[in-house]
Amino acid sequence: MSETTAILLIACQDQKGLVARISGFIHEYGGNILDSDHHTDRETGDFLMRTVFDLSGFQLARTEIDDAFRPLAKIHKMQVQWYFSDQKPKVGILVSQYDHCLADVLQRHRRGELLIDIPVIISNHQTAAWWADLFHIPFHHLPVTPETKPQQEEHVRSIFHEQKVDLVVLARYMQIVSEKFLREVRCPVINIHHSFLPAFIGAKPYHQAYERGVKIIGATAHYATAELDEGPIIAQDVVGVGHRDTVQDLIRKGRDLEELVFSRAIRLHIERRVLVYGRKTVVFD
Amino acid sequence: MSETTAILLIACQDQKGLVARISGFIHEYGGNILDSDHHTDRETGDFLMRTVFDLSGFQLARTEIDDAFRPLAKIHKMQVQWYFSDQKPKVGILVSQYDHCLADVLQRHRRGELLIDIPVIISNHQTAAWWADLFHIPFHHLPVTPETKPQQEEHVRSIFHEQKVDLVVLARYMQIVSEKFLREVRCPVINIHHSFLPAFIGAKPYHQAYERGVKIIGATAHYATAELDEGPIIAQDVVGVGHRDTVQDLIRKGRDLEELVFSRAIRLHIERRVLVYGRKTVVFD
Amino acid sequence: MSETTAILLIACQDQKGLVARISGFIHEYGGNILDSDHHTDRETGDFLMRTVFDLSGFQLARTEIDDAFRPLAKIHKMQVQWYFSDQKPKVGILVSQYDHCLADVLQRHRRGELLIDIPVIISNHQTAAWWADLFHIPFHHLPVTPETKPQQEEHVRSIFHEQKVDLVVLARYMQIVSEKFLREVRCPVINIHHSFLPAFIGAKPYHQAYERGVKIIGATAHYATAELDEGPIIAQDVVGVGHRDTVQDLIRKGRDLEELVFSRAIRLHIERRVLVYGRKTVVFD
Amino acid sequence: MSETTAILLIACQDQKGLVARISGFIHEYGGNILDSDHHTDRETGDFLMRTVFDLSGFQLARTEIDDAFRPLAKIHKMQVQWYFSDQKPKVGILVSQYDHCLADVLQRHRRGELLIDIPVIISNHQTAAWWADLFHIPFHHLPVTPETKPQQEEHVRSIFHEQKVDLVVLARYMQIVSEKFLREVRCPVINIHHSFLPAFIGAKPYHQAYERGVKIIGATAHYATAELDEGPIIAQDVVGVGHRDTVQDLIRKGRDLEELVFSRAIRLHIERRVLVYGRKTVVFD
Repeated sequence: MSETTAILLIACQDQKGLVARISGFIHEYGGNILDSDHHTDRETGDFLMRTVFDLSGFQLARTEIDDAFRPLAKIHKMQVQWYFSDQKPKVGILVSQYDHCLADVLQRHRRGELLIDIPVIISNHQTAAWWADLFHIPFHHLPVTPETKPQQEEHVRSIFHEQKVDLVVLARYMQIVSEKFLREVRCPVINIHHSFLPAFIGAKPYHQAYERGVKIIGATAHYATAELDEGPIIAQDVVGVGHRDTVQDLIRKGRDLEELVFSRAIRLHIERRVLVYGRKTVVFD
Repeated sequence: MSETTAILLIACQDQKGLVARISGFIHEYGGNILDSDHHTDRETGDFLMRTVFDLSGFQLARTEIDDAFRPLAKIHKMQVQWYFSDQKPKVGILVSQYDHCLADVLQRHRRGELLIDIPVIISNHQTAAWWADLFHIPFHHLPVTPETKPQQEEHVRSIFHEQKVDLVVLARYMQIVSEKFLREVRCPVINIHHSFLPAFIGAKPYHQAYERGVKIIGATAHYATAELDEGPIIAQDVVGVGHRDTVQDLIRKGRDLEELVFSRAIRLHIERRVLVYGRKTVVFD
Repeated sequence: MSETTAILLIACQDQKGLVARISGFIHEYGGNILDSDHHTDRETGDFLMRTVFDLSGFQLARTEIDDAFRPLAKIHKMQVQWYFSDQKPKVGILVSQYDHCLADVLQRHRRGELLIDIPVIISNHQTAAWWADLFHIPFHHLPVTPETKPQQEEHVRSIFHEQKVDLVVLARYMQIVSEKFLREVRCPVINIHHSFLPAFIGAKPYHQAYERGVKIIGATAHYATAELDEGPIIAQDVVGVGHRDTVQDLIRKGRDLEELVFSRAIRLHIERRVLVYGRKTVVFD
Repeated sequence: MSETTAILLIACQDQKGLVARISGFIHEYGGNILDSDHHTDRETGDFLMRTVFDLSGFQLARTEIDDAFRPLAKIHKMQVQWYFSDQKPKVGILVSQYDHCLADVLQRHRRGELLIDIPVIISNHQTAAWWADLFHIPFHHLPVTPETKPQQEEHVRSIFHEQKVDLVVLARYMQIVSEKFLREVRCPVINIHHSFLPAFIGAKPYHQAYERGVKIIGATAHYATAELDEGPIIAQDVVGVGHRDTVQDLIRKGRDLEELVFSRAIRLHIERRVLVYGRKTVVFD
C-alpha cells in the first residue's frame, strides 16, 4: 500500500442517507474508496463510520478537505476526524522496570510493523534506558513517589506536549495516572492491563488469578480513563494455564499475551480503526 | 431485528465511485443502509460488496428493484444478487450414519438460530431417520454403492429440485459427490471436512493426524467443487490434542469442532455474508 | 480400553517415598499401572495423585483392596478414593427452561462419550420433559418460588438420594441452590456459569459483558459451593466477540461454549481426573 | 525452584512394575520425587517416563547414579537419560536474515526464561550480528551457496562441536540442512516451520496459505530429520486470518506465532519434557 490515503472517521446519530452522502462527497472530488465500514448501534442509535480513500486524483488539497466537508458535517451533526496515511502518529511511551512491552513495540517499530514515530520514552526506572539507547530514542528518567507524583506527572505531560505526541502508551507503567494527567495530556492514552478485564482489576492480577485457580489468564488493552481499569476495551487475548503453573509461570505466559495485545491495540489505534462511544469501542478490523 | 431488510451482493472489477453509486441508488429510493462492507482485492482488482438496507419506506416493490438497478449494474458489469430477510433459504441435507452435525443443525434450527427451512433430509443410511422423525422433516433413505451412484445422485438431485432447495449441505455425508451432481444441482453445496485443510485431504483425516503426531486438529467447511477438498474455504477451527489422545479421542474432539464450523458456515452463507471469487471466499462478518 | 481398571485418588501432605510406596503396593499385588500423575503444591505442601491400573491379574478382590491399602494410608494420613472403570457414576441433572446443556449431555451420553447413568432429570420448568421423554429418562417437574424453595430443594434432594446419584449437575438451572442443599445432597455438584469467572458473577452475565464492551466472552464449570460462583473451577473456555454482536449473539455464541465447558467438566469429573484442594482444583488430563 | 533436581527419562517396552521399580530405586537412595509422568502407547506398547526428584539428601553422587541404575535398566531394556537441573544445556543457533525468532530467544534468555547457555550464533547473513553483539555472543558469518554447502555445513558442524552444543536450533534458518549434517552434528536439531504442518510443506508457506484462502495460519516446531518438514512435532499454534489480510499481514501475524511456538519447543526440550518415539513426540507438560 504505497499510495497515500485519507482516513475519515465519523460519529453521529443514525439518519437515512449517511453512507450515500459521505461516499458521494468523496466520489464528487475524484476519490476512490478503498475500504469502508460502519456500524449502527441499534440500541443507542449511534452511527460510526470509517472510510479510507485513495488521495491520488483527489481534487481537494488536504487543507481544503475539512472546509469542503463541513457543510455536510453540520447538517448531520457529525463528529469528524481526518487522517492521512503519510502522517505518522507520534507516540510517547511511559514504562516501568518491566520493559518487555516496550522492547516488543520498539522491535515492531524497527521492522516496519508500526508506522509511528517515537519521539520520547519516559520511565520511573532506569531499566528502560538500555532499550532507548539501543534504538536511539530520547529517554527521561523521572522517578515518582506518592509525594512527588503531581510534579512528576506535570513534568511527563510537559515533555509529551513539547514532543507533540498524538498518543501516549503505558507499556506496563505500573503507576495509576491521575485524572488530571489524563485530562491535560490532551491525547488518547492506551494502557495494557495484565488480566482479562473485568476480572482481577487492580494490583497483582496474576497473583489474584493464581489464588482463584482459573484455567485461563488474559490481558486487556484499553483506553485509560479516570476509573481504574474501566476504560473502553480495545483488545483482549487469553492463554490456558493449569495446576502446574506457578505464579511465575503465569507471569511468564502473561508477558507474551501482554506484548501481543498491547501492540495489537496500538496498531488498531494508529490505523484509526478504533472509535470510542460510551464506554465501549467499535473496532473496524 | 424484526424489520424486513434487503441484502445486496455485488461483484465486479474495481472502479471509482462504486460505493457512492450503489449507496446513492439505495438512498434515492428511501432505503436506510444498516450494514455495508466491501473488499477490494488489490492484486486481482476484484471489488466485492455486501449492503443491507431497511425496506420499510423503500419506494420500490421487490419485483421492481432488480429492474431499477439494472442500468447501474450494466455500466459497471456487476454480478448482482438480491436477498430479502423474510425469505427463508430452503436447505437440503445429505448425511451418512454420522449424524451429529445433522442433529446439531436441527437443534439450532429449532431454537431459532438458523433462519432456514429444511424441506428434506436424505441419507444413505437409516440412522438419521430418527432425527428427521423427531423434527418432523421428510426423510429419504437412498443407499448408494459404486454401481448405483449415478442413479442415486440423480434421485437425490431430483428430490432437491422438487423441493426447490437453495442450498445443499453435506453434514458428514462421507460420499464424494460427482462433478455432474455439483453441476446439475444448481445451487451451492457446503461440505464439512474433518481436518484443517489443506492438511489431511481425503479419507480418515483423524487417523492421518494421529499417525503424524500433530498437536492440533481442525475442521474445515468449504464449498464443494469438482476437486476433492479443494473448494473455497468458508470457516475453519482447531483444538489442541496431545499424546494421551487416541484416535477415538481425536474423533470425539473433532465432532465438536465439526458441528461448530459446519453451523458457522451455514449461518454465514444464509446471512449472505460469503462471496466466492476464484478459489477463495470473502466473509463479511 | 476394554479392560477393567482401578482408579486411585490420593491426597495428603507431601513426604518422601509416596510414589514408591503407592506404586509398590499396586505392583506387589500384580497390578499394571497404565496411567499415573501427581502434583505437589510447593507452597502448601499438598500432595495429590491419580493412578490408574489394570485389574486383570490383580490379586485382590475389589472388596479387599481398601482394607489392604489402609495401613499405608494411615501411616501417611492419606485421603483415599477408589473407583472402578466398570462402575458407571449415577448423575442427577437439574435444569431450567434453557435446555441446550441438557440436550448436549444427553446426546453425548447416547453416543457413548460419557460413561454414566442418568437416573433422573429434575426441572422447575416443563421444557426439558421433551428431552427426558426422548431419551427415556424419568423426569420430575418441580416448580420453585422463593416461598417454596426449601420444600422444593428437600424434594429434589430426596429424589437424588433415592436414585443414589453420585454427582449432581446444574445444566443451566438458573436457581441459586442453598447451602443446606449442597451440604445435605452429600455428593459433588457441578455448575456451569455463563461467564469467564471471576468476571461477571451473578445474574445476566452476557448482558454485563455486552455493557462492558469486552472482546471475549467465556464460560466456567465449577463445583458449587455456598459462595455464589466462587467454587473451585474445573474448566473454562472463551470465544471472541465484536461490536456487531448483540446480546442475543453473545447468548448464542455462549451456548456453544457452555455446552463444551460443561461436558468437559463432567467428563473430567467422572474419569476422576479432578481433585479439589482449598478453593482450587488439580485436573489430571 | 532453587533446589537441584535430577531428571530421569526412560523409554522401553511396557512391562508390569516399571513405575514401582523406578520410583523404588529413587526412594531407596533417599530421593524425593517432585514430578513424575509416564505414557504407555497402547498400540505400540511403548512405555515412556519422565521423573524429576530432589537431589538434596540423595545418597548417590551424580557420577554413581548411572552405574547404580544400570542393572535395573538392563533387565527392562530401558533407554535411559539423566539430566541435572544445574547443568545448563548449550544451545547453538543457526539463523538467516529473518532475525525475529533469534531476537525473541535472546530476550527470553536475558530475562531468565530459558535456562541455557548460548555459546555461538551462526548465520549465512550479516543481519544477526547486531543481535549477537548486543547480547555478547560469539557470531560467525558463514554464507552458503549450493556449491559451498557441504563445506559450509562442515564448518558449522565443527564450530558446534568445538562449543560442545547439546542442541541446535534453526531460528528461521531458511536452508535445508543435509542428512549428513543432521547425522554428524550428533545432537537434536529443532526447526521452526512457518505453517501448520503437514499443510504447506516447503517454501513460502504464507504465500501458499494466501493462495489457498485458509482462515487460520499456523507455525510448527519439530525435530529436523532427513525428510523435509516431516520430523516429530513438538509444538504448534495457530491464529485466525481473513480476506483483508495480505501476504504481508500473514507474514507479520506469523512472526508472532513462530516466536511463541519456537521458544515453547526449546523450553519443552531443555526441561527434558519431550521424548521422541517413532515419528511422534510425547510432551510431558
